[in-house]
Amino acid sequence: MAAPTFQALPGFRDFIPSECAVRNYLFDTWRSVARRCGYVEYESPILEDTGLYLKKSGGELSSQLFRFEDQGGRDVTLRPEVTASLARLVAEHQRNFPKPLKWFEIGQCFRYEKPQKGRGREFHQFNVDILGEAGPAADAELISLAIETMLAFGFVEGDFVVRASDRNAWIDFASRNGVADASMADFLNIVDKIEREKPEALAQKLAAFSLTIDQVRAFIADPANASPAYLAIRDDLTARGLGGFIELDLSIVRGLAYYTGVVFEVFDSKKSMRAVAGGGRYDTLVATISDGAVDLPATGFAMGDYVIRNLIEETTHAAMQMEVWLQRNAAACDVFVVVADETKRPEALKLVTDLRRAGVSADLPLGAAKVAKQFQSAEKSGARFALIVGAEYPELKLKVLSSRAEESCNASSAVDWLTDRLQQPDGPLLA
Amino acid sequence: MAAPTFQALPGFRDFIPSECAVRNYLFDTWRSVARRCGYVEYESPILEDTGLYLKKSGGELSSQLFRFEDQGGRDVTLRPEVTASLARLVAEHQRNFPKPLKWFEIGQCFRYEKPQKGRGREFHQFNVDILGEAGPAADAELISLAIETMLAFGFVEGDFVVRASDRNAWIDFASRNGVADASMADFLNIVDKIEREKPEALAQKLAAFSLTIDQVRAFIADPANASPAYLAIRDDLTARGLGGFIELDLSIVRGLAYYTGVVFEVFDSKKSMRAVAGGGRYDTLVATISDGAVDLPATGFAMGDYVIRNLIEETTHAAMQMEVWLQRNAAACDVFVVVADETKRPEALKLVTDLRRAGVSADLPLGAAKVAKQFQSAEKSGARFALIVGAEYPELKLKVLSSRAEESCNASSAVDWLTDRLQQPDGPLLA
Repeated sequence: MAAPTFQALPGFRDFIPSECAVRNYLFDTWRSVARRCGYVEYESPILEDTGLYLKKSGGELSSQLFRFEDQGGRDVTLRPEVTASLARLVAEHQRNFPKPLKWFEIGQCFRYEKPQKGRGREFHQFNVDILGEAGPAADAELISLAIETMLAFGFVEGDFVVRASDRNAWIDFASRNGVADASMADFLNIVDKIEREKPEALAQKLAAFSLTIDQVRAFIADPANASPAYLAIRDDLTARGLGGFIELDLSIVRGLAYYTGVVFEVFDSKKSMRAVAGGGRYDTLVATISDGAVDLPATGFAMGDYVIRNLIEETTHAAMQMEVWLQRNAAACDVFVVVADETKRPEALKLVTDLRRAGVSADLPLGAAKVAKQFQSAEKSGARFALIVGAEYPELKLKVLSSRAEESCNASSAVDWLTDRLQQPDGPLLA
Repeated sequence: MAAPTFQALPGFRDFIPSECAVRNYLFDTWRSVARRCGYVEYESPILEDTGLYLKKSGGELSSQLFRFEDQGGRDVTLRPEVTASLARLVAEHQRNFPKPLKWFEIGQCFRYEKPQKGRGREFHQFNVDILGEAGPAADAELISLAIETMLAFGFVEGDFVVRASDRNAWIDFASRNGVADASMADFLNIVDKIEREKPEALAQKLAAFSLTIDQVRAFIADPANASPAYLAIRDDLTARGLGGFIELDLSIVRGLAYYTGVVFEVFDSKKSMRAVAGGGRYDTLVATISDGAVDLPATGFAMGDYVIRNLIEETTHAAMQMEVWLQRNAAACDVFVVVADETKRPEALKLVTDLRRAGVSADLPLGAAKVAKQFQSAEKSGARFALIVGAEYPELKLKVLSSRAEESCNASSAVDWLTDRLQQPDGPLLA
């Protein structure tokens, strides 16, 4: 066959039903964990004034933007991340909400990067933030949600770990060693790349601050350098029974300039130590975005859909949990109505309508077909039951498709009977 | 206060939590109706090759596109609608699916129009399509879903009506009156504007086809011009008990050129006869998009979020149903843990964690506060229960916030006890 005329753009995904089901599994899990931890959902626009992103990040993402001029001559950008919009929304609306705000968003973001395994030009992101609470209790509450999310996906202790640090610990270290405040961002950027940079280049860059690699490594290695905020978070998580999931790792400072205090990343501990999620405190961003109109401390994290999905698929127990969910949700319907006698189609149509109205997922063939073929369609649909409407109407037959067990019932009581049947232990396939 | 530095772009909405909840009500209703009618969910990319839209519509939407060149020099467009992408996806993947395909998508679309009440530059759209079935049974199945969706929102007979027509009836009429096949699209465009165009201009345009307004009006007025497909659909819907919701209205032809047969619109019958949804058959689009590689008959409709929301809010019984849903879903949590003795915070943290792990939505204050203030926070959160952790720990007090009724329990059994309590008739607030 010839290549299709049009294809999805490079780095953009077509979510055919099987892929969309995986997406829904991630979204449903994210949403339900966030809600049971007391977060409420919001959504910011996908397209924003480009200035918002430039102001927030100081241009860090500016080479990766889907940026263009709209028909009204505005400089606009498909959101590369959500936090800038959140700061804008909160600055405008915060006076209407009791503090702290615990908000989450599940949405798509766009970055013009080289597409590769585990990275596209669009991705879905779970964003969770607490605004209006400056103390470490908020960071602990936030990190506990990151942990609960991993547990909800079926991961267990040993599968992952939260590595946390505190930029304030680094700022203390740098100040003690004579680094000027104005150079702090540059210094933190060097620390951020410490694991990736070649030793000679690193040594040279540190030398500009009269520091050595050994000094920096020694600082990272000494647990006594844990900040008071880190210790408070660790104690809080320990009280929750989550102490085993957090580790001090001072090598983490996070790339973006807007972080101000505790920062953390959730790591896959078995494989390549990939970061599954990351975040931290950004106490000055709301003031920056609102030009000082609103000053609100904040802490937040984001988890993208690419890495978490790969990690689920590579981890047997998490993969099995997803598989069970997908199987339950892959069916197109619970009840497939077989029209064994085409003259009874009107009755079959009424029955399907009544079933659906009662909340039962039901379907039927749209054209005349042999009964055997209809049963094939029923199997393919993933339905649990076939309900046969034939010459004996109003007597109906119900077949359990897995066991071929058969029962009879009358059309007048079919809806109640099936609703009942679907409430039995193995339940409906579709939520 | 000074105006905020950044604002949402004109025509773009900030979904703060109360607005996001309304969005979720629409999405949840759309999704659950589609699933119980046997449709499976997919999602196409938000950004596509511009050529896809130009090829589909012949440029009808081209003045309203958010169109730009990406960093790789591609001519790309934020989707103005979803059907072109669907045709692309289906052409590529259809051989892996039994026919007919019954697919739905809930997604955002973008059109550069003048923002006004009931119309923005972005909107969410519920798209439902059946592909691979040419007969009117598919159109009836599709229209029944449009009707079931309205009923699921709480609308009743008399609130809305589906007005259906058939482009084939018009093509017959035009052919009988000597309109050449090559001019058919122009002719249908004139018919499409018949209610909006000034009589003189209309008469002049029809004269070019040697037709008069009276001839066209007489054709529209005569029920004998209903096409066989329309009649089959009406009979099918009547068998389902939905016959009262459909009316013949030959004045409907739908603007877009790609429609090929039965077309329909769902109208609000009380107010200004606004179209809430619209769609129809497009049997040639998949072949057009795939350059003939795949030929699949299709029928589909779309419902946008602006008009349906306005209609719900203006219709008392539908508005009340939404209000009940929003109230149940507006709470930030079901159980608010009050820390009456700050030395017991570790115990409170553990309790909150255990409740959440058991699926109960629970929250607690992140800092020390007076008990009275914590009760205010509990009220504001919308929780049903306050669970008080004080000096008497492990004895706990549970307060029903609406009635102030109080019970006691032991911390060791608190999770089971609350789970039980939330299963009682008034149930949990959060799904």
